[in-house]
Amino acid sequence: MIEKVALIGLGLMASSVARGLINNKESVKVIGYDISPEVRKIASEIKIFEVVDDLESAVKDSDLTIICTPVGAIRSVVSKISKYLKKGSILSDVGSVKKAVVEAVFPLVPKGVYFVPAHPLAGTEESGPNSGFPELFKDRWCILTPLENTPQEKIKIVKDFWENLGSKVTEMTPEHHDLVLAVTSHAPHLIAYTMVGVADDLAQVTNSEVINFSAAGFRDFTRIAASDPTMWRDVFLNNKEAALEVLGRFSEELFALNRAIRQGDGDFLFDYFTRTRSIRRGIIEAGQDTKAPNFGR
Amino acid sequence: MIEKVALIGLGLMASSVARGLINNKESVKVIGYDISPEVRKIASEIKIFEVVDDLESAVKDSDLTIICTPVGAIRSVVSKISKYLKKGSILSDVGSVKKAVVEAVFPLVPKGVYFVPAHPLAGTEESGPNSGFPELFKDRWCILTPLENTPQEKIKIVKDFWENLGSKVTEMTPEHHDLVLAVTSHAPHLIAYTMVGVADDLAQVTNSEVINFSAAGFRDFTRIAASDPTMWRDVFLNNKEAALEVLGRFSEELFALNRAIRQGDGDFLFDYFTRTRSIRRGIIEAGQDTKAPNFGR
Repeated sequence: MIEKVALIGLGLMASSVARGLINNKESVKVIGYDISPEVRKIASEIKIFEVVDDLESAVKDSDLTIICTPVGAIRSVVSKISKYLKKGSILSDVGSVKKAVVEAVFPLVPKGVYFVPAHPLAGTEESGPNSGFPELFKDRWCILTPLENTPQEKIKIVKDFWENLGSKVTEMTPEHHDLVLAVTSHAPHLIAYTMVGVADDLAQVTNSEVINFSAAGFRDFTRIAASDPTMWRDVFLNNKEAALEVLGRFSEELFALNRAIRQGDGDFLFDYFTRTRSIRRGIIEAGQDTKAPNFGR
Repeated sequence: MIEKVALIGLGLMASSVARGLINNKESVKVIGYDISPEVRKIASEIKIFEVVDDLESAVKDSDLTIICTPVGAIRSVVSKISKYLKKGSILSDVGSVKKAVVEAVFPLVPKGVYFVPAHPLAGTEESGPNSGFPELFKDRWCILTPLENTPQEKIKIVKDFWENLGSKVTEMTPEHHDLVLAVTSHAPHLIAYTMVGVADDLAQVTNSEVINFSAAGFRDFTRIAASDPTMWRDVFLNNKEAALEVLGRFSEELFALNRAIRQGDGDFLFDYFTRTRSIRRGIIEAGQDTKAPNFGR
């Protein structure tokens, strides 16, 4: 039974977790801590968790402690809290990268505390404690990457926690998680950042033209590229290998399409564009997006 | 005064124009033609225009003829209809590329007919006569690329036409239009197609994993990459120069970011990701998108 949950790092994820728990009318006590006094102040004003001013008060007696900071800060947080963690309690996280997190955190976890790494695949381009909403995790996947020898009942507590917030939960190895996410999230984000950067740099086209005439495609990129810079820096620093592998493949394919454009090879382009359409259908059928067209592209 | 409008090519654009005119309760008569008998059949069933079975009946007596086909078909349509176009009438289009269209069409336009090229920056990933809706052009830009010596009153008729459908209208040269759109639309589309193709190809990650775990970023790409293959083939065949220039710049930047990842240069990544965030703010302030976060990324 979880009676007390500690959330460390009070941004979009933690505030959505807290709001989801409130929405479910769960009697669990939720304590929050953030390293920034300003964020703590904002977070206490919204009254969705009890905000405390030190890590010890946050995590002691907690049954479940979830690190909701950017990936790059997880190691440092765990090194500071490990001595306060309750015997038998569970430590988890929401990091977008799992192999590096497991490698950094595992050696710091005290005996009798169970580390169950988690990654809820949910988010928006907003950040901060005011950006959360209770439905963020609804119908979204949460991937657990538990270590071998973790008792099944501890894994099940984390699984139930996310399912109660509306998520579908699955398990994979940290390595496989990182490759899957490199394809479905990390590489697309880097590419969106790159394209927005190119537009900003192009001297012949003014920024106001880019902004005014961003009707098609580009607007989606700017939204992706507006995501939290710290979070994304940490993702690429910590999922280097898989991200570089996928980006290498991407460059290869892009060169092939470039060549088709240069050579005027319409059949190649048409076949390529037709093939990608079917992936979209799969995503709609899998319930990950609606069929409603995005107005105004 | 426009009493009769002919729409050639009955897909998303033409059916949205027709629905917009109906919504405005305009008394203008709208005739539609499509080369495909099947599309003509579907189009007549939705009763938003009078569908005819030949180009001559569609365009004769028309005050405004708008070619709404993919860019690659515009030249062939104009060569077939030019002899039926009414003296004093206006010929226009909705093509996503302007320089190649102007070069192909201008020599075919008969004396006394005025060609006013147009590009409404609006669309969805859907296609066909059933995909249209009256608000498609609302608050979206429509770019006119009129030729020198076109009488101002003819340009004004096209301008008023799109403004009545809710668009904001501006003018630029065909060359500049093609470069601006290469940045804001063509290159982003190609990149999205490429990323979706890479995901489909990656042997270590199954398609069902790609589909299930496409929570972040990638889903926007699949939507972009689900756009009409014929339209996009024609865009790249006809805006080769500007598209290749922008894609070349993109590859350069991507290599720089790749190197930063490989070298673990967190400051470079953080600065890059911070800079791109401000472009997003500009787009929201320019009214081209809402601030509402995209749920579920």
